Amino acid sequence: MLNELKRQVLAANLSLPAYGLVTFTWGNVSAIDRQSGLVVIKPSGIAYEAMTLEDLVVVDLEGKVREGHRKPSSDTATHLALYRAFADIGGVVHTHSRNATIWAQAGQPIPALGTTHADYFYGDIPCTRPMSEAEIAGDYEGETGKVIIETFNQAGRDPQQVPGVLVYSHGPFAWGKDAADAVHNAVVLEEVAIMAMATRQLAPAIAPMQPELLDKHFLRKHGKHAYYGQ
Amino acid sequence: MLNELKRQVLAANLSLPAYGLVTFTWGNVSAIDRQSGLVVIKPSGIAYEAMTLEDLVVVDLEGKVREGHRKPSSDTATHLALYRAFADIGGVVHTHSRNATIWAQAGQPIPALGTTHADYFYGDIPCTRPMSEAEIAGDYEGETGKVIIETFNQAGRDPQQVPGVLVYSHGPFAWGKDAADAVHNAVVLEEVAIMAMATRQLAPAIAPMQPELLDKHFLRKHGKHAYYGQ
Amino acid sequence: MLNELKRQVLAANLSLPAYGLVTFTWGNVSAIDRQSGLVVIKPSGIAYEAMTLEDLVVVDLEGKVREGHRKPSSDTATHLALYRAFADIGGVVHTHSRNATIWAQAGQPIPALGTTHADYFYGDIPCTRPMSEAEIAGDYEGETGKVIIETFNQAGRDPQQVPGVLVYSHGPFAWGKDAADAVHNAVVLEEVAIMAMATRQLAPAIAPMQPELLDKHFLRKHGKHAYYGQ
Amino acid sequence: MLNELKRQVLAANLSLPAYGLVTFTWGNVSAIDRQSGLVVIKPSGIAYEAMTLEDLVVVDLEGKVREGHRKPSSDTATHLALYRAFADIGGVVHTHSRNATIWAQAGQPIPALGTTHADYFYGDIPCTRPMSEAEIAGDYEGETGKVIIETFNQAGRDPQQVPGVLVYSHGPFAWGKDAADAVHNAVVLEEVAIMAMATRQLAPAIAPMQPELLDKHFLRKHGKHAYYGQ
Repeated sequence: MLNELKRQVLAANLSLPAYGLVTFTWGNVSAIDRQSGLVVIKPSGIAYEAMTLEDLVVVDLEGKVREGHRKPSSDTATHLALYRAFADIGGVVHTHSRNATIWAQAGQPIPALGTTHADYFYGDIPCTRPMSEAEIAGDYEGETGKVIIETFNQAGRDPQQVPGVLVYSHGPFAWGKDAADAVHNAVVLEEVAIMAMATRQLAPAIAPMQPELLDKHFLRKHGKHAYYGQ
Repeated sequence: MLNELKRQVLAANLSLPAYGLVTFTWGNVSAIDRQSGLVVIKPSGIAYEAMTLEDLVVVDLEGKVREGHRKPSSDTATHLALYRAFADIGGVVHTHSRNATIWAQAGQPIPALGTTHADYFYGDIPCTRPMSEAEIAGDYEGETGKVIIETFNQAGRDPQQVPGVLVYSHGPFAWGKDAADAVHNAVVLEEVAIMAMATRQLAPAIAPMQPELLDKHFLRKHGKHAYYGQ
Repeated sequence: MLNELKRQVLAANLSLPAYGLVTFTWGNVSAIDRQSGLVVIKPSGIAYEAMTLEDLVVVDLEGKVREGHRKPSSDTATHLALYRAFADIGGVVHTHSRNATIWAQAGQPIPALGTTHADYFYGDIPCTRPMSEAEIAGDYEGETGKVIIETFNQAGRDPQQVPGVLVYSHGPFAWGKDAADAVHNAVVLEEVAIMAMATRQLAPAIAPMQPELLDKHFLRKHGKHAYYGQ
Repeated sequence: MLNELKRQVLAANLSLPAYGLVTFTWGNVSAIDRQSGLVVIKPSGIAYEAMTLEDLVVVDLEGKVREGHRKPSSDTATHLALYRAFADIGGVVHTHSRNATIWAQAGQPIPALGTTHADYFYGDIPCTRPMSEAEIAGDYEGETGKVIIETFNQAGRDPQQVPGVLVYSHGPFAWGKDAADAVHNAVVLEEVAIMAMATRQLAPAIAPMQPELLDKHFLRKHGKHAYYGQ
């Protein structure tokens, strides 16, 4: 079932340690088959170096396991909430990558301070509000997804133009058209997190970049007027 | 004697440079066989790349060498004090890992600022008080153990819930159910040390994380209501 | 056509990830054959690990493709502007290397704070002014080149003595006598960017280094009185 | 001539990139044969990966080349000054290792803030004064050696107890009983440079460590009462 998707999800999960985004098992990637509405996701707490296609779990959009003998990632409910709300995304990744997590711990959005950021994220990368006691005590992982969606909705942000978010006191989620693209965006998120932090140390009063430069770089890589790449 | 335990202790010691926790010989791991009360520990000042099972030293809980032709780690008395006081731990590790050592040099506990920390440490990671001249001039390594134990006792902290400590002006000790688990916790301690330091630079007035979020993450991985992993 | 130059340009492009200067495809190296006025440059958005000699593009100094089936780097117009204005350079490189980019994002020149800097850059490494809306909306990449040249001209700086620049809110360009030399200078630029940032954190009021020490180090490696090397 | 010493010097030079202490050719190691008064040193500007025993140069204590077809390191005169003044040292190394260089650029000694430092350096690691115009314009590399020696003499510091120094606006020199020991100390110097910098960011008013703890750690590894190692 979904063999090609499984191969993509396994490869994307294994790329996390290769990109230096995870320590131990602190990360998980999933991808969705939009036709069947089924999601392939990493099992919970399995070491990357031992993970095989058989360890992956297939769940439906309500979280019911449809295939696999492992428990799915403890963050599965967050992934599913994002797939349900963001209709155009095909892959989701969660990590505790060091520098994005630092911004999440600081509870601050990552400002757009340069063209590296603008090439991928159309404006700042938002940080969710703190979750309430009830949200934490309830369906915690599902509520985490809801607070991400609320953050985008309330600010009128488009998840296609801002393919990532910081969860307050926790860490980043990123997404993309498929599993590999989600991980690609997670790598960029981590890199711009490092750069923005040091830029602010060097220039504490730095303002966000010029809007016209943000437009130029985002739009030369995305949308119908893009001219980057082959 | 204790061959399986020796293999675990050797592997755990060799994992220290692999995890980037040590420079040269600046680290040591031990493990205890609770039935016999014997401890297997790294020899003093032997390079990791040359270390074999034969170099390991077996000592009893009073520090008497029971097997081995090497001198045990100069920090042996600290390890033994921890085994005597913390009845449920099976492995101990000491390193000068860079960022945990920086907090130790600053003489500050590492505050719990995010879920990465909360997944492993139930609250801040304490830092011992400065040792007195008499403690330093006396049985220094044994006194180091005593001041760690005092730190936990006086603050009513449970070593099972806070598997590590910073020794003032010195560096971290961590422990766990066995040698590998102790090293695992030392890796996490180092990672949260990095993150907390940068979080504080980004948000100097940052408060500790919400207690309910700390509870949620610690308890979803530890204790009888844990649901993380297989 | 230009086979030896192509080999040099390919090798220089492949050295970017080896030196840790690029993430994904965020960098490009070119070199010029001054006799024919032809420039060999990296294709746009091709992964380094898959790049071959056949992917390289030959363009003339006006940007017309003279050989190759790929689209040249989106930054080609910037490279060409530099070759036209700086008659003695043979290679150009652009990256988003982390620390040089941080200075570019901060909009600040990198001050000469030590002999490592002085060995390669004769004085601070300038940062361009912000580009105007018209420049960004127009021939953006060509205008980027013009603002670099303006920066050197207005400050009376010699591109032979300062083989690199920071583009405001963007990142570094570096150059040299050939492609490899340009990359060499980009590595140094990145290293002095790191050092200068931390030096300023340690000593916020630090002044530029003594002019006589700057002279001594630059001139012992460059020009007719050089005595470094074989 | 001096074949065993050459092997040691070559190995020590090659260990510099392995330890991450050098970029390109920015470092050099030498060792002395005290009986003959001859010094083996790295050639100037030769890439480490291509260096062989034949590239090493033998000079006497006055700097006269006694064997070898290469020009010796441009820093040779500094090495020789140290060998002449510090009678008990057998090896010298100079690098631009990142963090030691940052302290040198800041013009500040590295304070003793923890036991990692105390295990190797008995007190702060001094930074030389700025050199005068005349010193820079004269026999620059020899004067660099003189200002190091002056720094130790005026402060009554013992080069056996403080095996390294920062040269103002330049970078570190370290030494030891032989070439490998000098490099070992250079690695430690770099590590304590990193730790001290971050400690100061975390605790800006941090005082030097307790003198009794400094004594304890230095003396448990050095001198007749040492008990560390086998």
